Amino acid sequence: MGILVVGSVAFDSVETPFGKMDSILGGSATYFSTSASFFTDVSLVAVVGEDFPQEHVDFLKSRNIDLGGLARESGKTFHWKGKYGYDLNEAQTLETHLNVFENFKPVIPAEYRGADYLFLANIDPVLQMEVLSQVQNPRVIACDTMNFWISSKPEALKKVIERVDILIINEGEARQFTGEANLVKAAKKILSLGAKTLIVKRGEYGVLMFTDSTIFAAPAYPLEEVFDPTGAGDTFAGGFMGYLANSGDTSEEGIRQAIIFGSVMASFNVEDFSLNRLKRLDYKEIEARYRSFKKMTHFEGLAG
Amino acid sequence: MGILVVGSVAFDSVETPFGKMDSILGGSATYFSTSASFFTDVSLVAVVGEDFPQEHVDFLKSRNIDLGGLARESGKTFHWKGKYGYDLNEAQTLETHLNVFENFKPVIPAEYRGADYLFLANIDPVLQMEVLSQVQNPRVIACDTMNFWISSKPEALKKVIERVDILIINEGEARQFTGEANLVKAAKKILSLGAKTLIVKRGEYGVLMFTDSTIFAAPAYPLEEVFDPTGAGDTFAGGFMGYLANSGDTSEEGIRQAIIFGSVMASFNVEDFSLNRLKRLDYKEIEARYRSFKKMTHFEGLAG
Repeated sequence: MGILVVGSVAFDSVETPFGKMDSILGGSATYFSTSASFFTDVSLVAVVGEDFPQEHVDFLKSRNIDLGGLARESGKTFHWKGKYGYDLNEAQTLETHLNVFENFKPVIPAEYRGADYLFLANIDPVLQMEVLSQVQNPRVIACDTMNFWISSKPEALKKVIERVDILIINEGEARQFTGEANLVKAAKKILSLGAKTLIVKRGEYGVLMFTDSTIFAAPAYPLEEVFDPTGAGDTFAGGFMGYLANSGDTSEEGIRQAIIFGSVMASFNVEDFSLNRLKRLDYKEIEARYRSFKKMTHFEGLAG
Repeated sequence: MGILVVGSVAFDSVETPFGKMDSILGGSATYFSTSASFFTDVSLVAVVGEDFPQEHVDFLKSRNIDLGGLARESGKTFHWKGKYGYDLNEAQTLETHLNVFENFKPVIPAEYRGADYLFLANIDPVLQMEVLSQVQNPRVIACDTMNFWISSKPEALKKVIERVDILIINEGEARQFTGEANLVKAAKKILSLGAKTLIVKRGEYGVLMFTDSTIFAAPAYPLEEVFDPTGAGDTFAGGFMGYLANSGDTSEEGIRQAIIFGSVMASFNVEDFSLNRLKRLDYKEIEARYRSFKKMTHFEGLAG
């Protein structure tokens, strides 16, 4: 049945040591859905303003992303401006103009409510709960969040986490949310809230997945050229959920493979600004990089 | 033929959020040789002062470490005082008293000069070169260094790297030494100096190994209790070289397995202060944790 994603479609103005781009296509739902579209059908719920160009709509349509839930409101599209230093690990936010996103009330079209896979991208956890009240019974619900909601709406966020199967957040957020410096302890606290699987994103250091009884460690792909890390986390989530929805294999083994596909997609995305690398990506490259991940992590087990 | 290690035997005074220990056994050669001793024979070249207690000598002997190269000079033993915050990633050095280590001139006993495996722990690169001039023709030479030598003696360090097979340094040092923020570029620069294999230690994020044509990524073992990271890097190197010397397999596959054994040893070492965890470690635990690393990193490859 494909994936439903609710999040942002935005303009980004990004400065990295390798260049500066103004008002390029961005947003969590944009990165997520483009990445997932390499694996399965995606329906997107988001809002843009009157200034959102047809060119971007056409691109998303060309990826077979269903835009029936993309509202267009009077006003301007959400616009984020940020800057990265040489280490490219953390963005410094220069400006945030919520614009039409400020009054975003996600309305899930009737035909999307039976979606089997749901991704709640980083939006107000109160809105994430409203989305959950509109969908029927997704097989897998995953969600993301950010430091802003952890500090401003921790109780609402806890309620969301009680309802989701998979929480995908970054390392600093896991520590912040639980008040635990030790990541294993932080993971236990988060899993005790209700999520069955926790995926902790660690940027260039890869991903750790925690369940009640297991840990899976996946590296990031070491790249010689990283141009723009914007959207890497959502691109990861898109590849992850896309592969999961396509395979239908939600066993731990299936989730591990999905994590590698997510990591593959994120590794491509950072090779260029905006979604430019994904625009020229084909599935053969995805498979080739998956095989590189396999080679890169291989070592012999012990006999016996 | 076992391993020869040249480095420091020291006292450490360490403060972490979990406790404070005064004048406990430490030093790069101590951690290295104890770790390696679980796999093979080790001979140690270092210097201590008159205050170095028989208890520590007895411990090292109990690990079958050959102390024929442990000089005892008049004066005090090298003493390092440091402190870690909650993230435990980086030590803050509070005091360094070189004491007898200040005039350390490594003299390799005749019976050690034919060693097949040589580890040059973190000492002045000029002294590392002097060690190289005393040994015959080791099958594998590995070395470590630190930020202090990178900034104060970069040319001497380059000469050492030209001569070694394997350089084992941490991520920040790789960046500092090459002036490259990107780790893949930094690795290429280092390999172009002559080392065939570069192992980059990333603390709780594991290890990356680079050769001319391959990359191997190994995670660190996620621990719920990390008491004291002191010596983790040398313990890694000891497990790594120890396994390599014992197996004699210096193929890339053998090096990958050795990296996992090194990671296993480091993961035990940080579970207690000083070498306390290694003192109560047995080989079955090492194998069990190696198997945990295998499970933790496993994912299915693609068909075909």
